[in-house]
Amino acid sequence: MKIPRWKKAEFEEIEYEPTSIRELLREMKNICELIVDLAYSAILFNSKEIAEEVKYLEVRMDKLNYQIRIMAMLAARSAEDAEKMAGILQIAQAAETISNAAGDIVKLLSYKLTHPILPHLIKESDEVIRKMTIHKNSAAVNKKIGELRISSETGVRILAIRRKNKWIYGPKGDITLKENDILICIGPEEGLNQLNKLLKGEIEVLT
Amino acid sequence: MKIPRWKKAEFEEIEYEPTSIRELLREMKNICELIVDLAYSAILFNSKEIAEEVKYLEVRMDKLNYQIRIMAMLAARSAEDAEKMAGILQIAQAAETISNAAGDIVKLLSYKLTHPILPHLIKESDEVIRKMTIHKNSAAVNKKIGELRISSETGVRILAIRRKNKWIYGPKGDITLKENDILICIGPEEGLNQLNKLLKGEIEVLT
Repeated sequence: MKIPRWKKAEFEEIEYEPTSIRELLREMKNICELIVDLAYSAILFNSKEIAEEVKYLEVRMDKLNYQIRIMAMLAARSAEDAEKMAGILQIAQAAETISNAAGDIVKLLSYKLTHPILPHLIKESDEVIRKMTIHKNSAAVNKKIGELRISSETGVRILAIRRKNKWIYGPKGDITLKENDILICIGPEEGLNQLNKLLKGEIEVLT
Repeated sequence: MKIPRWKKAEFEEIEYEPTSIRELLREMKNICELIVDLAYSAILFNSKEIAEEVKYLEVRMDKLNYQIRIMAMLAARSAEDAEKMAGILQIAQAAETISNAAGDIVKLLSYKLTHPILPHLIKESDEVIRKMTIHKNSAAVNKKIGELRISSETGVRILAIRRKNKWIYGPKGDITLKENDILICIGPEEGLNQLNKLLKGEIEVLT
């Protein structure tokens, strides 16, 4: 039996560690902002693929919350510190609550209902979220996002990149794309198809 | 004593009612996506103004969840319906959990701590969220968002508009701005200042 990736993650050693409370909080904030969008998209488009990313991020959030608790306790040396840290832990706990709630949303996809529950029920725009992988012979490999003119040519925005077990949230134009990067993108169907062709190496430039 | 607006909202009659489960879910989704961003911004910029919007949306979400429960029960006429509705209520509950967690985040601002807790601690970009009101003698009154070229001239994006007690989430270019609209905007400090001048009637066009 193939173990899903997010399931593996639960038992895996953490591969890279944020080094400070500041970084932990920053990643938790980024996860919060991403996971809510992803959870709704998974349900709206009946996508187990996106749901898997949500579960993965939920596991990651658990770990971050555990780590931040430990670091906060180690960092508090005075009553004033402790007060500050209590505030930080409150924010961290809220972030975990948000990611758990996002997890609850996608759990619906695993119930064996006759009909998918919500596809298109609350769909209001033409924008779709999709997950795409960069193939090794794509012209996008080792290019900066900015060079590819993705947004101006396709109307697509990259919400996040997963590179092995590391996430880059809201990547800017100066990020260099790598082979096997997984992109979580939002945009119109047609633009996504266009971008996907580039990422698979079927076309050389976006036009 | 002046009662804060969100406090009033708790006891007020609901002024406009979404008419279907579909609309209720859509608004809940919109609130979820907005409230998480707003809650973090409130904390990051130590802004009671933004925190107030979070509380307001949290109250609104409670109401929507209550309404959707009633509508779901009235709508379920068969076992199959009921199964579908149970799924919808699960999503609605998760949405309320998310908005409550966002509320927990901003509660920190009301503790009388010597120092604000987090300003700039997890600030990673130059983007700021700000709330601005359109004055009656602004050139933006009765203009469509698209006509003003806000995004191209200032780099600012409008996240939401509050018009009296109604919210417009992620407004598109074809929305006409009105006197007294409250805009929740995100963007670089300088662009926000520029836009604010336009909304206050201090300048006639964005350049």
